[in-house]
Amino acid sequence: MPDTIFGQIAKGEVSADILYQDEEVVAFRDIGPQAPVHVLVIPRKPIATLNEAQPEDAELLGKLFLVAARVAAQEGIAESGYRVVVNCNAGAGQTVFHLHLHVLGGRPMQWPPG
Amino acid sequence: MPDTIFGQIAKGEVSADILYQDEEVVAFRDIGPQAPVHVLVIPRKPIATLNEAQPEDAELLGKLFLVAARVAAQEGIAESGYRVVVNCNAGAGQTVFHLHLHVLGGRPMQWPPG
Repeated sequence: MPDTIFGQIAKGEVSADILYQDEEVVAFRDIGPQAPVHVLVIPRKPIATLNEAQPEDAELLGKLFLVAARVAAQEGIAESGYRVVVNCNAGAGQTVFHLHLHVLGGRPMQWPPG
Repeated sequence: MPDTIFGQIAKGEVSADILYQDEEVVAFRDIGPQAPVHVLVIPRKPIATLNEAQPEDAELLGKLFLVAARVAAQEGIAESGYRVVVNCNAGAGQTVFHLHLHVLGGRPMQWPPG
């Protein structure tokens, strides 16, 4: 399977505005921001969608949430609030088939969430 | 700290339409649904917001995602698509201070996510 653009970012083959990275997780700014702060958090492991995640991925998936919170703090939106969103499959708006968390904040968020 | 309504649901003190539960995680229908399928997934452990999650919670946080995917499959929306949303703090729309994932599907989801 060819790499997605996010897989290429994780490998450093495509540049991005990276805010955090470690051995398993990378966080970078969305190029089509929907809020003053809009960051994507991905695993380096290429999991296409949440449906493909396996029980053995639990800790990795949890780390994505922890990095989302860390980046929110770094960006100064931890207390004012932020929304974490994962779209699973095209009907929910997923366009890149490499699992990613959207972290949005810096403005009030409306309900319903899309 | 007094229990939230979700903490009470996790303990079985308040009834809810429960779709899945195990020793660590409970999933039940949102009483104010924003889509044909709208389920909440919570840890039994009372973590107030994503900001309060600790590194040792990683596996538990990941299990919340896995249960979200499991419930989506159970509800028949895994392939048509679903959105997973976590609101952190009031500015993002969090109203119950017990960490919870919203799982929404059964209709097209719009962008931005609120």
